[in-house]
Amino acid sequence: MANENKKSVSLEEKFSRFDDHWSPKIIAECNGQLVKIAKGQGELVWHSHDNEDELFFVHKGQLTLKLRDRDIVLNPGELFVVPKGVEHCPQAEEGTEFLMFEPGSTAHTGKEQTEQTVAQDKQPWI
Amino acid sequence: MANENKKSVSLEEKFSRFDDHWSPKIIAECNGQLVKIAKGQGELVWHSHDNEDELFFVHKGQLTLKLRDRDIVLNPGELFVVPKGVEHCPQAEEGTEFLMFEPGSTAHTGKEQTEQTVAQDKQPWI
Repeated sequence: MANENKKSVSLEEKFSRFDDHWSPKIIAECNGQLVKIAKGQGELVWHSHDNEDELFFVHKGQLTLKLRDRDIVLNPGELFVVPKGVEHCPQAEEGTEFLMFEPGSTAHTGKEQTEQTVAQDKQPWI
Repeated sequence: MANENKKSVSLEEKFSRFDDHWSPKIIAECNGQLVKIAKGQGELVWHSHDNEDELFFVHKGQLTLKLRDRDIVLNPGELFVVPKGVEHCPQAEEGTEFLMFEPGSTAHTGKEQTEQTVAQDKQPWI
């Protein structure tokens, strides 16, 4: 593992380190699951993960998880788990910061490869 | 699983539902890991988990994770992962609210059984 968790991790401090959108950074590891943070603005892409649930927790702004049958709107302090296999398209207001919890194996945009896709091995520990 | 995650989950709303201390409630499940919340005040008990890392994230107040060689002090928006096998004793200011992320198999106070211990099957979904 690239980073040993010797110290506490501050979300505020970690979010201050980058400004790109839809580009997950890893901040912690727990039982093989990774805690990632990202900033969002506009829309990512419709995709799903066959084998992994994906937890989203909003820190700032507003993240909408568009599902095929409804929208899940998340404000700060709210979370939602997208179950494995469920198609979703994240959409965010300007200034949105959020946290994800997912296995190391989870592909960023599922099987979809777009200009926005960031491969797992390109997602850095910060 | 007792609860299906059909809707978003608000930490604020979930914390408003209970007042007891060191008594974890389950609010979400993701890849076999449980998201739990608890309120703390005073000290729990020294314990460790042989096989599970345990993530703590503070929502309100201040949580100190006493380790044998140092203290990890967590304020709102800060997190720490206690690695498997590492002895720890959580200690909290009055009004502290925190979130945990751990496998369903994690025993509340490790092998220690105290008056404060809440068995896994007594930890409710809320």
